[in-house]
Amino acid sequence: MPTESEIISKIRARARPNQQVIAGIGDDAAVIRFGGKCLIACCDLVVEGVHFRTQWAAPGLIGHKALAATISDVAAMGGSPKFAMVSLALPRATPAEFIEGLIEGIFEVAESYGVSIIGGDTSISPGPLLIDTSLIGECESERAIRRSGARVGDVIFVTGSLGASALGLLLLEQGYRLGGELIEESPIGRARHQAIKRHLMPEPRLREGQMIARAGLASAMIDISDGLSTDLWHILDESGQGAILHADAIPIAEAVAALQASGFAVDPLQLALSSGEEYELLFTCHPEDCSRLSELSSALSVPITAIGQIVPGKSLQLERGGALEEVSPCGYEHRI
Amino acid sequence: MPTESEIISKIRARARPNQQVIAGIGDDAAVIRFGGKCLIACCDLVVEGVHFRTQWAAPGLIGHKALAATISDVAAMGGSPKFAMVSLALPRATPAEFIEGLIEGIFEVAESYGVSIIGGDTSISPGPLLIDTSLIGECESERAIRRSGARVGDVIFVTGSLGASALGLLLLEQGYRLGGELIEESPIGRARHQAIKRHLMPEPRLREGQMIARAGLASAMIDISDGLSTDLWHILDESGQGAILHADAIPIAEAVAALQASGFAVDPLQLALSSGEEYELLFTCHPEDCSRLSELSSALSVPITAIGQIVPGKSLQLERGGALEEVSPCGYEHRI
Repeated sequence: MPTESEIISKIRARARPNQQVIAGIGDDAAVIRFGGKCLIACCDLVVEGVHFRTQWAAPGLIGHKALAATISDVAAMGGSPKFAMVSLALPRATPAEFIEGLIEGIFEVAESYGVSIIGGDTSISPGPLLIDTSLIGECESERAIRRSGARVGDVIFVTGSLGASALGLLLLEQGYRLGGELIEESPIGRARHQAIKRHLMPEPRLREGQMIARAGLASAMIDISDGLSTDLWHILDESGQGAILHADAIPIAEAVAALQASGFAVDPLQLALSSGEEYELLFTCHPEDCSRLSELSSALSVPITAIGQIVPGKSLQLERGGALEEVSPCGYEHRI
Repeated sequence: MPTESEIISKIRARARPNQQVIAGIGDDAAVIRFGGKCLIACCDLVVEGVHFRTQWAAPGLIGHKALAATISDVAAMGGSPKFAMVSLALPRATPAEFIEGLIEGIFEVAESYGVSIIGGDTSISPGPLLIDTSLIGECESERAIRRSGARVGDVIFVTGSLGASALGLLLLEQGYRLGGELIEESPIGRARHQAIKRHLMPEPRLREGQMIARAGLASAMIDISDGLSTDLWHILDESGQGAILHADAIPIAEAVAALQASGFAVDPLQLALSSGEEYELLFTCHPEDCSRLSELSSALSVPITAIGQIVPGKSLQLERGGALEEVSPCGYEHRI
């Protein structure tokens, strides 16, 4: 079976140009001229046993994450999500309360981010539970931030910190649960709780993406759903550039640092490079504009950290202690 | 587990009003004011083993039907589909050629109906193949035809003829295949071929829906995806009315009549009332406007048949030989 990127390449190669389409297949969301506005649209599919497990999270959290991930795609373009459609394939034995919890989780995240649910579809599933959410939104005309705009000399930035989502997944696999018995009241317990919450209940950086777009501060942007190295590769690939990342600059999540300090066997840098479903924004900024980012970071109370720069070439290198090493995309692989 | 309509009712009750939303949950598609235009959006989910079987049809036909069904929802509102997103959940062992065939089928139907594929998502599926297609289109401002507009005295019409899709499904279950050995070169063989093709490769009545809307000829409209009786119920329920259907007036598909005449044990009326996935348009028309429908029918070369009328009350009755009998929705039930 071909990989996801091979399938997307095939679909992209097959698609015909359309003058109304400003950005089509291959970005976080599509951007279209519609009426007098710029319409943004995307969808995100999550499958039980691949993206989530019903034993790991209450149905409300599953619904929350499904729509939050799609909103994050709109955030990565600097757009505003407005309307959502939700398709649900439900195993025949799904209890009514589970479905109600799932729907409530979807509505809660929709309302938090100003999204109206306008439709959808449901079906029985002879296999796993599956949720596909589509979003329609707006962006300022021609202001949508593509993956393809990074230029040599641009500085690479990331919002927030990285690694906690993958750590949360690791802890869930080890039997830890939100509110479960294994999570004791202690600094380590709180770090575990933080990491699991980060994995199960991500919040899209919607306001951050919109402010970055409005201020014209990003030449390219993506949300970290597959992992820093893989998602940076997407920017490099679309922009036709290379990059150097500075290992010491990559912001490591507190929970990761706390668990490592307590003796938990984890490589924080590796985790930060590969942790998917972080939903932080990764973007590039022209050097002259970088100073304005610190003001924005203060205004938003969100760390925005310079972690590298765009260089000529086609490779991604990691600078550690003055030495450079090649990095290949080592993103999050969904397991069955 | 609750039924599909119970789930939709719950979602609909939970949704908050939004002034931009002209039609939301509970119609064939949502209609939204967007950028000075009227935007139409809908999605349709099909699941292997529920809506299709990979042994019954080439992958191109599966892709064709998935998108055709969604286009039919736009047709039922009188709109024009413009952009599609396609989400695919693929079993791990899916061969590359299968995926290529599926994508090609989707692109072919998209191009036939003026739709550009602008995005989507893919995932591994630990269970069945699943396709969710979302459409974004346009309709003339405030001209979208809802399910809720039927009034007492309106005449009920249907395009084309009914029953062939359910017959095709029956034949597939009995081992007949498109191009298979069991389908001989004879009038019966051709009828079987016709019925199976109708089931596997439906064409949405897009132009018909648009012409009906443009001419202002329908007070309510729906596409027949669940079966005549069930879909008429949807109109009656949304419009708060009852209806009488005339058994002798319901147009039976040629293939159904031919197979019945040859001794195949089938009840054509029952088939026509219950056959889902017909993708014919079912609509109501003010009595004064009915004469204009025969011109439209000639212009389109598509039969448009009066099959009943809207009456006061809350029931659906079938008139047969002068006697009235209650009809309960007996639509297509997807089987696992």
